[in-house]
Amino acid sequence: MTVRICEVGPRDGLQNEAEQLSPRLRAEFVDRLSSTGLRRVEIASFVNPERVPRMAGAEEVCATAKPVAGVEHAALVLNPRGYERLARTRCVEARMAFCVTESFNRRNQGRSVEQSVADVGGIVAAAHADGRRASVTLAASFGCPFEGVVDPGRVLDLAGQVAAAGADEIVFADTIGVGVPRQVTRLLTGAAALGVPLGLHLHNTRNTGYANAYAGLEAGVSVLDSSVAGIGGCPFAPNATGNIATEDLVYLLEGQGVDTGVDLDALLSAAAWITEVLGRPLPGQLLRAGRFPAPPR
Amino acid sequence: MTVRICEVGPRDGLQNEAEQLSPRLRAEFVDRLSSTGLRRVEIASFVNPERVPRMAGAEEVCATAKPVAGVEHAALVLNPRGYERLARTRCVEARMAFCVTESFNRRNQGRSVEQSVADVGGIVAAAHADGRRASVTLAASFGCPFEGVVDPGRVLDLAGQVAAAGADEIVFADTIGVGVPRQVTRLLTGAAALGVPLGLHLHNTRNTGYANAYAGLEAGVSVLDSSVAGIGGCPFAPNATGNIATEDLVYLLEGQGVDTGVDLDALLSAAAWITEVLGRPLPGQLLRAGRFPAPPR
Repeated sequence: MTVRICEVGPRDGLQNEAEQLSPRLRAEFVDRLSSTGLRRVEIASFVNPERVPRMAGAEEVCATAKPVAGVEHAALVLNPRGYERLARTRCVEARMAFCVTESFNRRNQGRSVEQSVADVGGIVAAAHADGRRASVTLAASFGCPFEGVVDPGRVLDLAGQVAAAGADEIVFADTIGVGVPRQVTRLLTGAAALGVPLGLHLHNTRNTGYANAYAGLEAGVSVLDSSVAGIGGCPFAPNATGNIATEDLVYLLEGQGVDTGVDLDALLSAAAWITEVLGRPLPGQLLRAGRFPAPPR
Repeated sequence: MTVRICEVGPRDGLQNEAEQLSPRLRAEFVDRLSSTGLRRVEIASFVNPERVPRMAGAEEVCATAKPVAGVEHAALVLNPRGYERLARTRCVEARMAFCVTESFNRRNQGRSVEQSVADVGGIVAAAHADGRRASVTLAASFGCPFEGVVDPGRVLDLAGQVAAAGADEIVFADTIGVGVPRQVTRLLTGAAALGVPLGLHLHNTRNTGYANAYAGLEAGVSVLDSSVAGIGGCPFAPNATGNIATEDLVYLLEGQGVDTGVDLDALLSAAAWITEVLGRPLPGQLLRAGRFPAPPR
């Protein structure tokens, strides 16, 4: 069984932390993660730094983070302008994202869903012309803060349009952490016929994140997003919590017999480092509880 | 699909909290839980109060907690002496527990596994003669702090002996929170032929608790133990964490289409109450994040 992990701590994690880290420190974070056996890291976001100050200096992060053989560095874009910035960096993958509900997408990206789908076509074409991979994330695929539970039929329809536009991967995101396993199963089985690798981006806001990851594994998911130590819960927004924690996900996956390729001790070191940098207790639990069985001394 | 929840907050939860609650306050806790739609609550432990001071006054808890129609009050016993104490109370169910590994059982109960299995026979017979149900928990069924990963064959062999002794229910406990879904599936499918209702007692120590609950649901589990708000993580033992939180479990189960019979708002009120009583942030996440979709006002 092959499942790839996409580490999103430097992007979705840090984007939602109270602490502002310099591009240099974020690049060091990326370097630490790139030496753990993780094969893909989302290292930056090419969004407006006035709207998302934590991601300011994305170009510097990309220029400073060291390329590592076998490790792909990806970055988030929301529109063609973002892709143009990414195209001037070493990133080998663009991860485009939009929200599947009209009210959330308009609020978050200032565009209709239809406009965002049109953007997908342009970004995928540009990325492919540049020799890059293009992944597309359907945000709020499980529930929307404005529109409630999201109809899976609507999500699958959009997934079909994104696949037709040539996306190399489609990721269903539980952006606000409300999903349950049967939604995961429904989306993954419904989209299987598209013939595109499918991913999940999960938040553990209501303690369903790891159950959803397991449901995804059972349904043949190809990619799981996670952030080391589970960073991303903003202390100023008590309702927000981070992505599922990469080290806890690795513990679960390896326990299920999946070879993640990750050196868990190295990953725990990276988790300990970012915990110290951010200076607050983080949601990942393996760092506190320890591996089991304990590694030989 | 029918899955029963056994609320263990007043027992396994409070047993492991730093705060010592009086029997009167523990009985109030039981009363609050008994009015949420939960149908079974483990309300006390008949163990040596010198070894487990948090459970002192078990008789008073049982005498003070109000009987509620449709709600079964159960209590834990480790040996025949414990059952004799339980037999003088209104509890309708004895939950006997022992550890499946020799070193853990000797340290925890001062008995060999063989002696504990023999005790099961006596306790089950006595409970049945008294018109009570007798449930048996196999502690450390997934991993042992002294012996590492536990052989499922050994656990299933013991489950067979316990079933032969007449237990009304067999619960596999992940006492130290190390289990993964495939262990759950292995134990539940392996024990299905015993013809006894099977349960799971899960801790979320390494963030696998809810994934394990979901795996149990998929494998036909009958009973899931949980503690409201996820209480049970002792602040003095940073490696310990509580049971899976009842309200988060209800959110997961209801999302899967399981009718738990629980009034989630009432349960969240009980979670808020015990959070205030214990005066520390607790692991349950639904209380912080809120229901989704938000209930109508």
